[in-house]
Amino acid sequence: MKLSTIKQIENIAHEVGGVVSLAQGIPSINSDDLIRDYVIEAIQANKVDHYSLSAGLPELRDLVKEKLVLDKNTEVIATAGAIEALSTIFLSLCSDGDEVITFSPYYAPYLGIVELSGGKLVTETLKSEDGWRPSIKSLESKINSKTKIIFLCTPHNPTGVVFSEVELKAIGDLAIKHNLLIVSDDVYKNFFYNNQKPFALYDIEGLRDRLLTVVSFSKDFSLSGWRIGFLTGPKELLEKMFGVHDMLVNCAPVVSQYAGMSALLHDEEILNKNMPEYKKKRDLMGKYLKELNDYLDFTYPEGSYYFFPKIKELENSEEFCFDMVRMTKVAVVPGGSFGMGGEGHVRLCFGRSKEDIAEGMQRFGNYLKDWSKKKNS
Amino acid sequence: MKLSTIKQIENIAHEVGGVVSLAQGIPSINSDDLIRDYVIEAIQANKVDHYSLSAGLPELRDLVKEKLVLDKNTEVIATAGAIEALSTIFLSLCSDGDEVITFSPYYAPYLGIVELSGGKLVTETLKSEDGWRPSIKSLESKINSKTKIIFLCTPHNPTGVVFSEVELKAIGDLAIKHNLLIVSDDVYKNFFYNNQKPFALYDIEGLRDRLLTVVSFSKDFSLSGWRIGFLTGPKELLEKMFGVHDMLVNCAPVVSQYAGMSALLHDEEILNKNMPEYKKKRDLMGKYLKELNDYLDFTYPEGSYYFFPKIKELENSEEFCFDMVRMTKVAVVPGGSFGMGGEGHVRLCFGRSKEDIAEGMQRFGNYLKDWSKKKNS
Repeated sequence: MKLSTIKQIENIAHEVGGVVSLAQGIPSINSDDLIRDYVIEAIQANKVDHYSLSAGLPELRDLVKEKLVLDKNTEVIATAGAIEALSTIFLSLCSDGDEVITFSPYYAPYLGIVELSGGKLVTETLKSEDGWRPSIKSLESKINSKTKIIFLCTPHNPTGVVFSEVELKAIGDLAIKHNLLIVSDDVYKNFFYNNQKPFALYDIEGLRDRLLTVVSFSKDFSLSGWRIGFLTGPKELLEKMFGVHDMLVNCAPVVSQYAGMSALLHDEEILNKNMPEYKKKRDLMGKYLKELNDYLDFTYPEGSYYFFPKIKELENSEEFCFDMVRMTKVAVVPGGSFGMGGEGHVRLCFGRSKEDIAEGMQRFGNYLKDWSKKKNS
Repeated sequence: MKLSTIKQIENIAHEVGGVVSLAQGIPSINSDDLIRDYVIEAIQANKVDHYSLSAGLPELRDLVKEKLVLDKNTEVIATAGAIEALSTIFLSLCSDGDEVITFSPYYAPYLGIVELSGGKLVTETLKSEDGWRPSIKSLESKINSKTKIIFLCTPHNPTGVVFSEVELKAIGDLAIKHNLLIVSDDVYKNFFYNNQKPFALYDIEGLRDRLLTVVSFSKDFSLSGWRIGFLTGPKELLEKMFGVHDMLVNCAPVVSQYAGMSALLHDEEILNKNMPEYKKKRDLMGKYLKELNDYLDFTYPEGSYYFFPKIKELENSEEFCFDMVRMTKVAVVPGGSFGMGGEGHVRLCFGRSKEDIAEGMQRFGNYLKDWSKKKNS
């Protein structure tokens, strides 16, 4: 299996040198001193050298339960980031031919993970002209006897849409009606820009026996390098996953489990400090995009930390982005790598520093204008 | 997939409380201050918060090459421990029906990993009465048109045998003759007790285009909780693995990549300090085992950090070990969990502290004597 397009772009950026990257979703903010101090103390107290139980440190798992809705049937596995949680889930649940429905555009590894597990990814396209809102009727038309899982991400990567309570309840009703499981990628749950914490599937009590939720500390707590996240779900489902998780990583890195623990202990303080910064960065990137209105169409994301503009007349986003990183030294992600629902778009991450956003958007704008001129000459 | 027997035993030990564990291979020694200082400096210098390239930090990969035989076609992927390296390899290489031959007894996750990847694990039994030495002729008889990989571990877990240069060259010749790949689990490469560094398959230049080597920092550098190791192999093979590794963990935890880097920078100093301790622990555990000669047969391991005695008249090692952890509060691993080649044995880890070895072996001896008395009454 080849490396994903995002990683290919990042590799080229590394080779070319001097590239401003708005590609991979890496926060420019560093981890909080509260977390660092806690981790360093744990290192020095001999707490991180030995394997934890495979499911993770009991203290971390208790803290996760305490911060989510308490439910005696909910079990927690600490994972090496959200990606390991997703691989564990699908490798545990999918057999040959099982169908998994997700909204397109979708985060590219979804396809690889579902296929690696022997399943088949079926897509329901979100349309930019509908403001990326899901059509429940169209979603239902994709369900058949082979469908096993509805797999969604909200706030949504790459479109930035936040599914509403009404939409999520309707999706939940479909899952109950057709006896499906739901996998919810909640990695961006703390990134929202309309002052209202996004409604989560976990808030629907009647869904919890069929819901697997994946959360990461990478983005909101700036811990992407630490590889720490977790998955929650009903005991009966997680029982099937312990073995696979154990085979993939044995246990989540213990030093990072302490980082996650500290993040949860200080979550309000850290989020209150960092999240307003992302709002400012969103507005900054939006300002640059507005100036390019002749060349692209875009909406402001309600959540996550990406813009996903449609470039006018763009047919091959991959070619466009690979050429751009080499020629103008700015890395962004081709929309086509998010499935056909993303073709014609590019994804721009505003999680990066203001300087990178300013410099990157200048380069992007210049390249886009030249490209458009050449195309129409 | 259920949790492995080792992990079930460790979970029971955690629930029961007050258990002395000689089960899971966890070193009692803590990570060296040289490593801790290096890591803490990296944390404070903002070096560990962001994803690395998926294959790992270039500095770490260069260091791995420098410490192995230099070879321009060798590529390195830093992994979240050896287990992630193995899962990456088999998920990348095995398709439905591909056969993988390994020596039995074998580390239990080998079976799960090969099956998860769609392959079939075929075993060649090592016999205690042959001093666990492999029979090349018998190994060759297991090869057929479906065979794709020979998968071995030396120094060997759980028997402690170290495959000789002659044996490894013969295995290498088989691989060339039948056009097979070799996966070599070299996790215990620094654990040897006869003053001679074990010969490694990597030392055979003609094998390198078909050899994948897996190494971990968990045991020799006491970094099991950090989840850091690496895999090496020819570029053409590793190209197939980047995508799977990326989907399993994105990248190895960066903080742990710095720990691994420091381990390699100071490897001689740290190993010279720690390895003589393991020799002493081996002799200590051997002393206790000698006193139990009426109840078991054993040989001193040449490498790794396990004894694998055969308990006289033992038929169901799993029942024996599960009863023992509950009743006598000492955890050891049932030999049957290493495949049929291990039934009738138990695995005892002497990587633990001298106090734990002393107390654990007392409890083990008492339980064994009572069990034997009951059996013969």
